[in-house]
Amino acid sequence: METVNLGLIGGGTVGGGVIRALRRNGSLMASRLGVTLTVRRVAVRSVAKHRDLGLPKGVLTDDWRAVVEDPEVQIVVELAGGTTTARDMVLAALRLGKPVVTANKALLSAHGPELFRTAAKHGTNLYYEASVAGGIPIIKVLRESLVGNRVLSLAGIVNGTCNYILTRMKLEGIEFSEVLAEAQRLGYAEAEPSLDVDGHDAAHKTGILASLAHGFWVDPKSIHTEGIRQISRLDIRFAAQLGYTIKLLGVIKTVPSKPAKSAKRKGSATLSDGPRIQVAVYPALVPNAHVLASVNHAFNAISVRGDIVGDTLFYGRGAGADATASSVLSDLADAALDLKHASIERVPCFVAHASTSRVIPMEEVVSRYYLRIEVVDQPGVFARISTLLAKAGIGISSIIQPEGHVGETVPVILMIHDAPNAAMQKALKLISRLNVVRAEPVLIRVETFE
Amino acid sequence: METVNLGLIGGGTVGGGVIRALRRNGSLMASRLGVTLTVRRVAVRSVAKHRDLGLPKGVLTDDWRAVVEDPEVQIVVELAGGTTTARDMVLAALRLGKPVVTANKALLSAHGPELFRTAAKHGTNLYYEASVAGGIPIIKVLRESLVGNRVLSLAGIVNGTCNYILTRMKLEGIEFSEVLAEAQRLGYAEAEPSLDVDGHDAAHKTGILASLAHGFWVDPKSIHTEGIRQISRLDIRFAAQLGYTIKLLGVIKTVPSKPAKSAKRKGSATLSDGPRIQVAVYPALVPNAHVLASVNHAFNAISVRGDIVGDTLFYGRGAGADATASSVLSDLADAALDLKHASIERVPCFVAHASTSRVIPMEEVVSRYYLRIEVVDQPGVFARISTLLAKAGIGISSIIQPEGHVGETVPVILMIHDAPNAAMQKALKLISRLNVVRAEPVLIRVETFE
Repeated sequence: METVNLGLIGGGTVGGGVIRALRRNGSLMASRLGVTLTVRRVAVRSVAKHRDLGLPKGVLTDDWRAVVEDPEVQIVVELAGGTTTARDMVLAALRLGKPVVTANKALLSAHGPELFRTAAKHGTNLYYEASVAGGIPIIKVLRESLVGNRVLSLAGIVNGTCNYILTRMKLEGIEFSEVLAEAQRLGYAEAEPSLDVDGHDAAHKTGILASLAHGFWVDPKSIHTEGIRQISRLDIRFAAQLGYTIKLLGVIKTVPSKPAKSAKRKGSATLSDGPRIQVAVYPALVPNAHVLASVNHAFNAISVRGDIVGDTLFYGRGAGADATASSVLSDLADAALDLKHASIERVPCFVAHASTSRVIPMEEVVSRYYLRIEVVDQPGVFARISTLLAKAGIGISSIIQPEGHVGETVPVILMIHDAPNAAMQKALKLISRLNVVRAEPVLIRVETFE
Repeated sequence: METVNLGLIGGGTVGGGVIRALRRNGSLMASRLGVTLTVRRVAVRSVAKHRDLGLPKGVLTDDWRAVVEDPEVQIVVELAGGTTTARDMVLAALRLGKPVVTANKALLSAHGPELFRTAAKHGTNLYYEASVAGGIPIIKVLRESLVGNRVLSLAGIVNGTCNYILTRMKLEGIEFSEVLAEAQRLGYAEAEPSLDVDGHDAAHKTGILASLAHGFWVDPKSIHTEGIRQISRLDIRFAAQLGYTIKLLGVIKTVPSKPAKSAKRKGSATLSDGPRIQVAVYPALVPNAHVLASVNHAFNAISVRGDIVGDTLFYGRGAGADATASSVLSDLADAALDLKHASIERVPCFVAHASTSRVIPMEEVVSRYYLRIEVVDQPGVFARISTLLAKAGIGISSIIQPEGHVGETVPVILMIHDAPNAAMQKALKLISRLNVVRAEPVLIRVETFE
């Protein structure tokens, strides 16, 4: 049987997971593929510290160039992480014409176009199934399974740490800071949690998905990003009473070409006639009847609506050595088969085919909202708030006053239909200045999947 | 740009869906793939009746051989259905070395091995993403995305008609016969509904999935198959009170090699030391916390547990012209890319790699159960039933007597842990003969996904 030699860079969590998975299921994969995958070289920070990987003598090295440049190494697997040396590693391998498999979403987000150009220039390929949503094969699904579809909308729970925190907040009725502290103790969250809880990691992944779905490279700077620090157990409880669950979502939508009201008034740049795409990360109320609302703990899920296939959803573990290893193995199988069949550019790493599409600023996006305002409990309060909203051209679909609150102020919840984000923010400022409003209003978007 | 010419057989629902989808998104696909797919010939029953497909003159024919044998046709798409002429069509195309795309699960179930052999012999390929679960890309997921995994278990809602009926029974509290009649009026169920409601269609699909997951061809005759005719609204309601939803599932599990008690006693054929696989279709209680319980109406979903990836789930429309067309387009893209790159056997249609595995008889399978017995409301009834079960070595995990029942008999529900199907059936016969038992006991399996 034909053998393909692999060179791994990174012997940490994911690297160890890939090595263990290959040891466990390597012969099964070989019988399925007709190709044997062999770990030829592994670069680690410290050779002495990685004896436990159980690799034959001479496989381990602390020099990543020795892996990339080894003439026997046919596929390079970058699992080192980071965006600086990792970029050098991937570029070096691609320049040698070697296909690269990576799980590095931050690297792709920061340097995607350069890496894709380099792969194309040197007639090789870059595989990155493991970079988004761990074990969920969303990259292959978007590029191959849904190739006949226009993606009308996509909404994904793509950060396991945030979903774990929001799930525990809901199930146990406790606050963000409490769950975060415990998650950090248990190792589910980083000591510096910003990458996760402020939505940046989700934005990296959402940008990759948006680029694949829409055929143009989405600049990560154009992705409106909010995290979950401001979500309170109170809002999670009120949302539940209204039939919703709060989830951090990556949201990608094709926006109808007719400009929103506020944009029209301002005469802002909506003249380009190419498709206008919303790409954003924010916490949102998800109806409990939608499968996404049932995705709990560290699981991820991505719902995709295609113009032909209709609604689909893909669910699995979003992180962890094993789930990520499963996606790396899938990419290794593709890369090995492509080497065997000399079809290495069969599915190119990125096809830019939509030159007129663009990401629109969040201000132009029309959303639905949950708005919680703490008000003094006196007559006329509703009237003052709703007058301000009406003046901004914003319609209220319902007003709910949760029961059982006694005190100087009471919470009022307004559900708001289809208002442009710019108009909503402007109205919110005016509302927060009312003397009957006693705390910063809480505004969370609502995704109805209609 | 390179062009690949398609020949379609079948201008009905799915054929029309494929033609419409190609007309709508053909140029998008071409820009993604670098290949243009062109409908060259379409065979229909009556050329006069299919003018509405809007195809250029000369494309339509009523002779399928004219499509298959047209030297310009490079890929044949079989959407005619049935297992007799469809077999001739597919074999004829494969013998000419032409790749075939089909949505025909009945054909694959009946003649899979012959078709796969023929494709291999003539150096071509057979693609069948659309044969299982409509728009859900489960074939590609199992063969490519999860290629590094051993499939520990798989449970799928793969028949949309049954799921539609069970969903309406639950939501509206009405009986099977009533929903079936309305589904037939609306065209959601066939006039002769047996293929769907008796589980045969689900068995075709489950057999295909089991074969792919486990690497040996699963004889459809070895698939234990039950339908949903015997499910009553009463059991749906009681299941709901216990936190479960009843779904028709295709269930595939690797059974631990230690033989079950009853098999040991009987000394039956458990000597082969290859993996033992359960492959079956039956209605089952699914815990409401599991995502499968939330899959409603005509949607399908397949949950797959891999030894590396852990739990995954794939959800989408299980039938209909458009969802099926989406999967056909995905196969067409693969076939066209494989033609372009001369890699037509890159992912063979079937790889038999597990010669020692076998499907075990349902009698040897250990299941959990929901058992409803209508009993005379008098002391000592529980004792008599539980004594019979104890004698059969079957343990009861709980006994529930639903409230609010008045009459000569009352329902008693027993939840039973891990009993071999043979022992359970035997005990059931004895229980049904008790004079305090006034109706045939209702036995439904419970899938806990633990």
